[in-house]
Amino acid sequence: MKRTIKVAGIQQVCFEDKAKSYERSAHWIAQAAQNGTDLVVMQELHATQYFCQTEEARFFDLAEPLDGPTAQFLSAQAKQHNMVIVGSIFERRAAGIYHNTALVFERDGTLAGFYRKMHIPDDPAFYEKYYFTPGDDEPGFEPIQTSVGKLGVMVCWDQWYPEGARLMALKGAEVLIYPTAIGWDRDDTNEEQTRQKDAWIGVQRGHSIANNLPVIAINRVGYEADPSGHTTGIEFWGHSFITGPQGEFLTLAEHQNETLVEAELDLNRIEQVRRIWPYFRDRRIDQFAPLTKRYID
Amino acid sequence: MKRTIKVAGIQQVCFEDKAKSYERSAHWIAQAAQNGTDLVVMQELHATQYFCQTEEARFFDLAEPLDGPTAQFLSAQAKQHNMVIVGSIFERRAAGIYHNTALVFERDGTLAGFYRKMHIPDDPAFYEKYYFTPGDDEPGFEPIQTSVGKLGVMVCWDQWYPEGARLMALKGAEVLIYPTAIGWDRDDTNEEQTRQKDAWIGVQRGHSIANNLPVIAINRVGYEADPSGHTTGIEFWGHSFITGPQGEFLTLAEHQNETLVEAELDLNRIEQVRRIWPYFRDRRIDQFAPLTKRYID
Repeated sequence: MKRTIKVAGIQQVCFEDKAKSYERSAHWIAQAAQNGTDLVVMQELHATQYFCQTEEARFFDLAEPLDGPTAQFLSAQAKQHNMVIVGSIFERRAAGIYHNTALVFERDGTLAGFYRKMHIPDDPAFYEKYYFTPGDDEPGFEPIQTSVGKLGVMVCWDQWYPEGARLMALKGAEVLIYPTAIGWDRDDTNEEQTRQKDAWIGVQRGHSIANNLPVIAINRVGYEADPSGHTTGIEFWGHSFITGPQGEFLTLAEHQNETLVEAELDLNRIEQVRRIWPYFRDRRIDQFAPLTKRYID
Repeated sequence: MKRTIKVAGIQQVCFEDKAKSYERSAHWIAQAAQNGTDLVVMQELHATQYFCQTEEARFFDLAEPLDGPTAQFLSAQAKQHNMVIVGSIFERRAAGIYHNTALVFERDGTLAGFYRKMHIPDDPAFYEKYYFTPGDDEPGFEPIQTSVGKLGVMVCWDQWYPEGARLMALKGAEVLIYPTAIGWDRDDTNEEQTRQKDAWIGVQRGHSIANNLPVIAINRVGYEADPSGHTTGIEFWGHSFITGPQGEFLTLAEHQNETLVEAELDLNRIEQVRRIWPYFRDRRIDQFAPLTKRYID
């Protein structure tokens, strides 16, 4: 059985006003639909600007339940265009418990599943530990079954961890997907900016190769000022990309403008590649228990 | 304290005759010494041609104990040039137990430690499961302390496994080192050959990024015929490289000729990078126990 799917990622600018962000997303989703896309991947927290540049209690007002306005927007888009959509919300689960959550909608607009970001970053201008409770063991690292395949959806900071990618692969994921919002500090040198951007691409490409899985990594673009005025803001670096199951680039947005990144994925190639280079046969699982240690002193 | 070391890898052709291989290695080691190298990394099984292209009992005659002729050669070279050397042997541990083993010699020629290849490949023309017993839990994935730093030495097929790299990092490795013998099947298309070579580079670069560690990956060059005459032999693809702790290329041998690959590694940068992007702080170790499963059905 042929299992080729057309996928697209939306690398876009976001606005303070959610309605304006939806409008921009809808423009690009319609474009992808015209191109016959089966699966659309949005970037991280695409309904708003990246509020985590500063710690301010008022930004919790942006949070929404799993069936809030952003979910409704994504659901309607999925149904209208008969495509699977991976979106991202700032989730309000309860008073005092908020998550950074990816949502997956089926072609008929129903929620196929969700993923709550497991690894939460915290470094200057990315103060996520203030806003987001880490995902707990349900759903944990669990791929989401859809009509286009089993999707290993994680979020941004997760992309630096081989463990998450491997757990998704061991649970049968057929694609690894990372909605992202990462950018440059304008005060860094060009050399440092390039090393960071190349590392971001390189580590995810590594997961693609090590697991013989396609990777879809979609990042924000545009400059966003620091609401607190303390820093020079973030220049989101774009460079969204899609790899095939040998880590080969199928598409790479070589710039920081808004764009669709599109590719055809042949999901049957995963098993072909795993027959040539059978890594999964040989994992030394008898030796891997210490991977659950923080450090081995 | 400044902790900059000069490292070199030797990408060379190997011969059936061990003495001839040693001679070639000695030539390049002397060159590295002239350049002031502190640490030399040899490729995998550098004393002989890659005999695993076929399964023949006579090739077990090539195996040596931990203090056999190849070890003696490496020890003498380390002492003569006052450098640390990572070498590789076909080890005879006992009748019926043979390993693919990396040896690390100190500047004074003493054996600092060894590593027995943990993941053993087996695919057409790389019939290693016939020859090599997988390394057991001693020494396992254990970095080797030397005067130039703590070396996370693994061997070839190990390079495809993020778990090995992570375990070495969790045990304090300051450099990941992969002696390798990998090459192309001449019957593959150019496109497939390029995907394979790029995947080989990409997966190891991924370990460098995910662990904020330099990687030294040294591969064989030259064409070697299949002793059994069944296949068209192997074209070892070279492309040895060294990365810094953000995965940035410090050197990449862009060809398949014999060459030294050389770089200066600033080991203090490891901690600087880990302060900018603190992955190790956030690993979800509460969720990683299933990494010890073959597959999660």
